[in-house]
Amino acid sequence: MPDDDPPTRPTLVDLDVERCLALVGRTPVGRLGFTTEDGDPMILPVNHLLVDGIVHVRTKAGTKLAAAERLGSVRVVLEVDELDADLETGWSVLVRGVLHPVTDAVEAAHLDRLGHHTWVDDVDRRTWLRIDPTEITGRGIATPTG
Amino acid sequence: MPDDDPPTRPTLVDLDVERCLALVGRTPVGRLGFTTEDGDPMILPVNHLLVDGIVHVRTKAGTKLAAAERLGSVRVVLEVDELDADLETGWSVLVRGVLHPVTDAVEAAHLDRLGHHTWVDDVDRRTWLRIDPTEITGRGIATPTG
Repeated sequence: MPDDDPPTRPTLVDLDVERCLALVGRTPVGRLGFTTEDGDPMILPVNHLLVDGIVHVRTKAGTKLAAAERLGSVRVVLEVDELDADLETGWSVLVRGVLHPVTDAVEAAHLDRLGHHTWVDDVDRRTWLRIDPTEITGRGIATPTG
Repeated sequence: MPDDDPPTRPTLVDLDVERCLALVGRTPVGRLGFTTEDGDPMILPVNHLLVDGIVHVRTKAGTKLAAAERLGSVRVVLEVDELDADLETGWSVLVRGVLHPVTDAVEAAHLDRLGHHTWVDDVDRRTWLRIDPTEITGRGIATPTG
């Protein structure tokens, strides 16, 4: 076996948008990245909901995300992945876009009915937010054997 | 059973710094959040290495992180978690701090010897970076039964 080219170790391959959205839709947990009022980068684990190709999350009064959201249109990135450290396989998808509150009551009620589920007690977790995407990209780790 | 107070659903509890670092040290994969040159939030999955209580990552020429790093001291957040959607349990740790390149050759060689492992072909992944922490926080999801 040659010890260089072709690769004998896993390599990264790009995933198309359709595949990225399918992975986001089937994976209930992601990490939301944004910049705080102080200019610091921040990451929060979130449950998300994919409806008509648009990612929705809920926020809670008093959090850093709620503070950032008060500034208006917030640029965010949702990262969703499945990374298996033992098998050294996995994928990661990034949904970059702008966060907007869902102000329409009918739309919010529809999202509520879809049964968005959070693990922890969430009586205050009232505000729905949508991520209007500007870019959706993904990478998978491909092994040489397929 | 009362249907309010005390909680019957999982709740979030704070983890102390020692516990946070132990979790980061035993978990090889995290997500690094930072702000790009364009002011956009960004998240990259990373392998990290905890040495003497300091988190180290490697970057690669040409990435958005490398571009941000050229700006000087970069504020970053490393998020590490284990979230089990089926069991609805898990934890998440945030290491917030400032990213600095490891310029000392002896220190870099030491890090190399510790066998930092990346899954994909990484001949260009040469630069070691350390996160000088400003804040380390963590949350765990506690179930009512303990």
